Amino acid sequence: MTGMTQTPNQSGKPKAGRGGGIATFAGIEWSDDPTGADIAVLGAPFDVGGAVRVGARYGPHAIRTQSMRHLRAYHRQTGRAPTLEQRCVDLGDVPITQELPENCLTAIEESAARCFAAGASLLSFGGDHATTLPLLRAAAGGLGTPLALIHFDAHQDVVDSYYDNAVRYNNGTVFRRACEEGLVIPENSIQVGMNGPVFPGMFPADSEELGLTVVDADKVAEIGPAAVAALIREKVGGRPVYLSFDLDVFDVAYAPGTGAPECGGLTTREVFSILRALPGLSIKAADVVELNPMFDSADITALLATNIAFELMTLLAIARRTHSE
Amino acid sequence: MTGMTQTPNQSGKPKAGRGGGIATFAGIEWSDDPTGADIAVLGAPFDVGGAVRVGARYGPHAIRTQSMRHLRAYHRQTGRAPTLEQRCVDLGDVPITQELPENCLTAIEESAARCFAAGASLLSFGGDHATTLPLLRAAAGGLGTPLALIHFDAHQDVVDSYYDNAVRYNNGTVFRRACEEGLVIPENSIQVGMNGPVFPGMFPADSEELGLTVVDADKVAEIGPAAVAALIREKVGGRPVYLSFDLDVFDVAYAPGTGAPECGGLTTREVFSILRALPGLSIKAADVVELNPMFDSADITALLATNIAFELMTLLAIARRTHSE
Amino acid sequence: MTGMTQTPNQSGKPKAGRGGGIATFAGIEWSDDPTGADIAVLGAPFDVGGAVRVGARYGPHAIRTQSMRHLRAYHRQTGRAPTLEQRCVDLGDVPITQELPENCLTAIEESAARCFAAGASLLSFGGDHATTLPLLRAAAGGLGTPLALIHFDAHQDVVDSYYDNAVRYNNGTVFRRACEEGLVIPENSIQVGMNGPVFPGMFPADSEELGLTVVDADKVAEIGPAAVAALIREKVGGRPVYLSFDLDVFDVAYAPGTGAPECGGLTTREVFSILRALPGLSIKAADVVELNPMFDSADITALLATNIAFELMTLLAIARRTHSE
Amino acid sequence: MTGMTQTPNQSGKPKAGRGGGIATFAGIEWSDDPTGADIAVLGAPFDVGGAVRVGARYGPHAIRTQSMRHLRAYHRQTGRAPTLEQRCVDLGDVPITQELPENCLTAIEESAARCFAAGASLLSFGGDHATTLPLLRAAAGGLGTPLALIHFDAHQDVVDSYYDNAVRYNNGTVFRRACEEGLVIPENSIQVGMNGPVFPGMFPADSEELGLTVVDADKVAEIGPAAVAALIREKVGGRPVYLSFDLDVFDVAYAPGTGAPECGGLTTREVFSILRALPGLSIKAADVVELNPMFDSADITALLATNIAFELMTLLAIARRTHSE
Amino acid sequence: MTGMTQTPNQSGKPKAGRGGGIATFAGIEWSDDPTGADIAVLGAPFDVGGAVRVGARYGPHAIRTQSMRHLRAYHRQTGRAPTLEQRCVDLGDVPITQELPENCLTAIEESAARCFAAGASLLSFGGDHATTLPLLRAAAGGLGTPLALIHFDAHQDVVDSYYDNAVRYNNGTVFRRACEEGLVIPENSIQVGMNGPVFPGMFPADSEELGLTVVDADKVAEIGPAAVAALIREKVGGRPVYLSFDLDVFDVAYAPGTGAPECGGLTTREVFSILRALPGLSIKAADVVELNPMFDSADITALLATNIAFELMTLLAIARRTHSE
Amino acid sequence: MTGMTQTPNQSGKPKAGRGGGIATFAGIEWSDDPTGADIAVLGAPFDVGGAVRVGARYGPHAIRTQSMRHLRAYHRQTGRAPTLEQRCVDLGDVPITQELPENCLTAIEESAARCFAAGASLLSFGGDHATTLPLLRAAAGGLGTPLALIHFDAHQDVVDSYYDNAVRYNNGTVFRRACEEGLVIPENSIQVGMNGPVFPGMFPADSEELGLTVVDADKVAEIGPAAVAALIREKVGGRPVYLSFDLDVFDVAYAPGTGAPECGGLTTREVFSILRALPGLSIKAADVVELNPMFDSADITALLATNIAFELMTLLAIARRTHSE
Repeated sequence: MTGMTQTPNQSGKPKAGRGGGIATFAGIEWSDDPTGADIAVLGAPFDVGGAVRVGARYGPHAIRTQSMRHLRAYHRQTGRAPTLEQRCVDLGDVPITQELPENCLTAIEESAARCFAAGASLLSFGGDHATTLPLLRAAAGGLGTPLALIHFDAHQDVVDSYYDNAVRYNNGTVFRRACEEGLVIPENSIQVGMNGPVFPGMFPADSEELGLTVVDADKVAEIGPAAVAALIREKVGGRPVYLSFDLDVFDVAYAPGTGAPECGGLTTREVFSILRALPGLSIKAADVVELNPMFDSADITALLATNIAFELMTLLAIARRTHSE
Repeated sequence: MTGMTQTPNQSGKPKAGRGGGIATFAGIEWSDDPTGADIAVLGAPFDVGGAVRVGARYGPHAIRTQSMRHLRAYHRQTGRAPTLEQRCVDLGDVPITQELPENCLTAIEESAARCFAAGASLLSFGGDHATTLPLLRAAAGGLGTPLALIHFDAHQDVVDSYYDNAVRYNNGTVFRRACEEGLVIPENSIQVGMNGPVFPGMFPADSEELGLTVVDADKVAEIGPAAVAALIREKVGGRPVYLSFDLDVFDVAYAPGTGAPECGGLTTREVFSILRALPGLSIKAADVVELNPMFDSADITALLATNIAFELMTLLAIARRTHSE
Repeated sequence: MTGMTQTPNQSGKPKAGRGGGIATFAGIEWSDDPTGADIAVLGAPFDVGGAVRVGARYGPHAIRTQSMRHLRAYHRQTGRAPTLEQRCVDLGDVPITQELPENCLTAIEESAARCFAAGASLLSFGGDHATTLPLLRAAAGGLGTPLALIHFDAHQDVVDSYYDNAVRYNNGTVFRRACEEGLVIPENSIQVGMNGPVFPGMFPADSEELGLTVVDADKVAEIGPAAVAALIREKVGGRPVYLSFDLDVFDVAYAPGTGAPECGGLTTREVFSILRALPGLSIKAADVVELNPMFDSADITALLATNIAFELMTLLAIARRTHSE
Repeated sequence: MTGMTQTPNQSGKPKAGRGGGIATFAGIEWSDDPTGADIAVLGAPFDVGGAVRVGARYGPHAIRTQSMRHLRAYHRQTGRAPTLEQRCVDLGDVPITQELPENCLTAIEESAARCFAAGASLLSFGGDHATTLPLLRAAAGGLGTPLALIHFDAHQDVVDSYYDNAVRYNNGTVFRRACEEGLVIPENSIQVGMNGPVFPGMFPADSEELGLTVVDADKVAEIGPAAVAALIREKVGGRPVYLSFDLDVFDVAYAPGTGAPECGGLTTREVFSILRALPGLSIKAADVVELNPMFDSADITALLATNIAFELMTLLAIARRTHSE
Repeated sequence: MTGMTQTPNQSGKPKAGRGGGIATFAGIEWSDDPTGADIAVLGAPFDVGGAVRVGARYGPHAIRTQSMRHLRAYHRQTGRAPTLEQRCVDLGDVPITQELPENCLTAIEESAARCFAAGASLLSFGGDHATTLPLLRAAAGGLGTPLALIHFDAHQDVVDSYYDNAVRYNNGTVFRRACEEGLVIPENSIQVGMNGPVFPGMFPADSEELGLTVVDADKVAEIGPAAVAALIREKVGGRPVYLSFDLDVFDVAYAPGTGAPECGGLTTREVFSILRALPGLSIKAADVVELNPMFDSADITALLATNIAFELMTLLAIARRTHSE
Repeated sequence: MTGMTQTPNQSGKPKAGRGGGIATFAGIEWSDDPTGADIAVLGAPFDVGGAVRVGARYGPHAIRTQSMRHLRAYHRQTGRAPTLEQRCVDLGDVPITQELPENCLTAIEESAARCFAAGASLLSFGGDHATTLPLLRAAAGGLGTPLALIHFDAHQDVVDSYYDNAVRYNNGTVFRRACEEGLVIPENSIQVGMNGPVFPGMFPADSEELGLTVVDADKVAEIGPAAVAALIREKVGGRPVYLSFDLDVFDVAYAPGTGAPECGGLTTREVFSILRALPGLSIKAADVVELNPMFDSADITALLATNIAFELMTLLAIARRTHSE
């Protein structure tokens, strides 16, 4: 009558109108336990690691809500229906108190580690970008290898510290820490979409010093999405991949509800074109971060985040079929 | 790690910050099955039975969302913690297609009937007020008796038809139908809070012809909440009670997000004063209807609906302890 | 099929659902010509005479829109259906360029004068409060007598000039000008609801110097609406009345969308109680001003303005029956 | 003084500032009677035939409102001023109760039939896409011939039924029904802009089985607007044309306020480029549907809908001059 | 031409229209240095000490903005113009990184200590309620004495820790810490307005154990504002007073934009009545906290916060005249 | 502790989190006196010269607010940090009463003249486009020469009068007046981005009659930003330049909050591409006008205006280094 039957049946017909239902991602099963899951969804509603706007704690809820109202089962371009074809479970959110940030990050790492231990691929919803570091720790630990990183963002997030204080873990430092901790393989990693005014430590050269490749937004506009996708494929090769997607990579008109929006960023069409050229890569984990519903307008950012999540889930599903674990 | 542990533990401390978690009402257990439950929560997101504004389909979701963010376990005035003291389950929403309205109403009735069959008290979230008719049918059927009705609303909802057409079931006709079908006992029933301009068929006399007692908003302002509560208690006596709460009973400044808002209605303080004087009544079922989040402002109506739901759940919990089933 | 049949028929049943229809006030007839009308509705969308917020130009449109969606034909307390009982026409809006303010005020006066020449009572929608001066000129001219004034407002609007400049006509000076021009009879006039911080020239004493009586918001709270109504009735006696209603008389929670909102003002219930005690007065013209939809929230101010307009139309209709013209 | 003089005079100068006036489309004459009109505007505020979001009932009002505030008389690219050059009348809205959907659709058909009987071209504003079926019935009936269809939309709307129920008429089935009923000529018809995740029955192949041509959003991006326009012209040839425009064909950033928004759709520039290459086609009727003001943001969708309506009115005006009726 | 001349001149006339100007509180002088000031205004935009909603960091900006637009120089009830009569300076905001919360609290304490060292009275704008602890430390330190506390709030903020973790300083613990640290004199302190559901540790008895007096919202409604003011005056006597004002003491309809809104709280009129009965008390410092503009609606909470700040500044000004420092 | 230290230090690190601080543009020094400044920022919050929407008076405040929250010190593409490299002062806003428009324009001219007299470059924030005329008068007067004009806008603003009245100065006439007064050199001037429906007097030919060059939005789309920039450079040559930027040049999806938005305009990427190709030109003054925060959505227009302002400040800074004054 209710609950677990929210997803469309195998014929793909919806079972009820939009707007109703307890909101799991895309109506998939809610479980405490990732055992047996192909793909686990996990929310990480931590947001006090953000330097500009706060409020990404409401991100996972907003994605789940929009997914119930606007997703349909089949991905148009590939014909795949990942939530019908794979066992997908929504693990809910890591319990986050926002206090004692390092404890929060540890809690995220522990939850994610359970997924990798169960052999599941992981799709995570932030929270701010600080949440990606514990996810990378869990991924590298669980898979026993550092990963190739595909990173969409308006910012490289490689500063050493944001202010003149001792804080090393926030949404501006995450990929410097990831390099330092050996969680990603810089020469197989690529950052796409950087844009907007900067502080020192935020120029492309600051990433390149770490060995990372940067394709900033001007470059994407110049060479086009197909060339960007080719660069990504070439860079990551056959490595296991972590894909981190910060929604501020979009122009603020497409995604107003993010933690640090910029003007002049990528369009949805460009991003979709790039993502849809990535099947075949060995993507093991992905996140969508920095959705801030408090600054959204008519839910357009939440809807876009939801569609990005659906693209990533499709990529995760394809990767599971393509690559033996 | 996630899911079922969302409610505060018995010490009553919250386990995680607000904003996170898959949203069930107040974080209670989500289940398909009301067996063994003391109180079952059920969403009825049907809204095409509404004559003015449409959009109440989003009501159950909004109440669940606000309940996760803003409720705390204990009711200040009674010291009761209904979700810790009783087994409460959230059954999710009745699957509603909005098409073929009478089929939708039947689906609501069937879901509610399962709750009464399991011996649970019922707390339902609309949806528009048309959803109350199938709930009353299920209640009267399941309990084997017509009920005393306590009805808060700016409108009596006793017109025969809203337009010059053949439609007999919508949010303006529900209590005329309930009287005709023998679901409520008019002489033990009372309607509170009527207010605003009217069409013929909407005057107090139109209810009184059916045997119902009307205490309109002017009267509430004149005699005060304590006297209103006394009238209610006197009217319903020891009968099993169905309490139906239409949020448009509030002045629009307190509750802008409703289906048919009126100016000059009751205040929150007045309504709380009335409700908090009702412990001891044998309330078996209650609903909160006509929350329309699309017309809400800063979530104040959703938050108020959530607090009304918490008051009603407290009353249901007290009634279960007081009255043997 | 469309147009002129938008009002409910004499049985009072609505003819179509809310949301549709070309918006005249309450669905009444739209005409260029007030001849033969009992009550003429006229919009005066001028707003550059406002000292604080601008945007009241959108007021008449917002009232018409809400009136189509939320009014019903009958006034609950009196049983009167003014738009069914009287010939009411909506003359649309005075064409306003906003440039050359004095020309705009002249245009308003000319349109209003046509109404009084045709023997109609007038209900006007602002625009800002500067629009009341030309309406008073037209009323005093057309009726051949100065009027008693009933003025609801958080401000007395009797400063000599708002800034140190030569501007004598704006929304802060209107009633000083009206007294100077002999349009109102100060000893039969009363100002109700003043509230909030002031500049010099805005204290009650500044009105009292002009012979006006002031009942500020503190006084209303102290003596209650019934006593206020009695004061009003005593003050205006049998004189022909102009009733000017500035929506900022309400507490900002009830009416956020006004030109100069104040905290701690009157409640809707208080205002309704006062207005509903005024039948019998010889009200010839009334206005609702300073609705600023750009600062509204969930349309609550527009809805309240619409209900105030309906109360005033009911009073105008009753006055036409009671008093021979 | 008011009413009928709202359009600019023949010199094209506006007569009054924006924000005022009773809102007809572009300030044109309001009439019950299409006799003698070149182009009739008709609102069809029916919205319970929509599967995702509800609220398109407010669409016609929003277009009229924005048209008063933001349109100017002349179309920049063609130099045409359709509302000055043709006799255009706004017939208001079909009275819709939302109850008994098939009765509502019949009412729409009857109103539209009167326009075609009077020899007028028709410009209709939804309402949801279910409103197009009765318009097509009226057009095919009134013109005595099936039509070529130009259909802009993110969805093909050719499913047989949306849910597993008996409902055959809603906004997802309209063009399958139109083909079945012989209202359109599939081989002269084309669907443009399909985009977003799908359910079975929503793939391009499902339209192609019916004989319709599909140019999905990916294809538009690939071949460009000029090539799309050429395809359309080639496809419809000299046939009488019905042009149906669902606003969700736009990327959600351009049009958030629609019934079923998708990410990655067309841009305004692309759509304008296509439409502006269509003069010369024999367009007899057009609609703009699925504007949902309840989900709009800063009125941008309403403004865009209004501009699309102005483009369509320009095309209808050109077609009347070009083609003898 | 600009800057320092923003306040009205001594005649009290405004110098320019609302909406312009760099926003200091009420247009007063901006200075780094409190030396010579009677009253110093200080923003404390720290918000990660809040348990429910985050975003109070935007509070000081919102109050300054509204104060430029809506305050006038004179307090109606007392005739005082505090910013014209006293030297008031706006010190801007304490620089807050949000990271390392205890460092942030220390920074607030240091800034406030400079004010007290300069002999100024202090008016502070939060930020969340955690900011009050360092302000109390500075006040007790600077004045060399613990203070009587007048505390308006829906919550007593006396829990020992909010979650099961080691965090002792946040917006739920502040007054327990203040008692423990000897910053306030419990027997001269009073908490007014408590309301809403609670967790253990949030009942009145939990404050009373600390020696604090609680007048919860039910009690305020029962005895009325005059009696509450009398209780406050009796309780604090001639002691130096710190007045802390949490905006969630208001019903959510009056103040939606707060960190932890509750339904059924105080009205603006009640609060104004209490505050306006407090002249004569030796108020040395005051704060307005928990304004969260991200959840506000039509700026009504910001406007109310601004008016509360103006009431408090008037009290501080009166106290400076009444009591020798 | 506060005030003047709001800008990042020379290392470029931010000193405090976003959201706090008294808002000057980009945190630069606030001063009454432009003496010694390289670049002066001046707000001109006049808005009753606008024909469509009103509310641009709030524009300067919104730009300052967003600049505090979202700008960073360095311009990514040039590596320049204009506010660290030049002495920039924010002069606040010209005091504007909105009454007596010609007096307001004179006040703007006088403030701007002081900047040019002090040898500073000027960056002004509107207000509506009528503010540009007094700025041009001050610039041409102060520099002793007419200027080359680079004008981004959806409208050419060269009508002789907007209505049939005597008003010669508003936001539709400004560049006709500037040509007539000899403030700009038509043959070195260029208007970019015109778009949307028009009234007579608004066609490109109407500008070309005055000797101005027009590159409308269709042309920008056709030839691309690089070609547009080349045209601009060729047109203005080495002349001193005034750059006027009306935000309605953007498509409404990118900039909803403007005075007269149009659909189908330029994208942010196109405009940035053009502006970033203009270093080397002798730009002496620039403005950003027609930001109307009352119609904005999620602050996206304010954020875009702020980024445009930062681009213009970068161009002004480069011009000061490149060209000797």
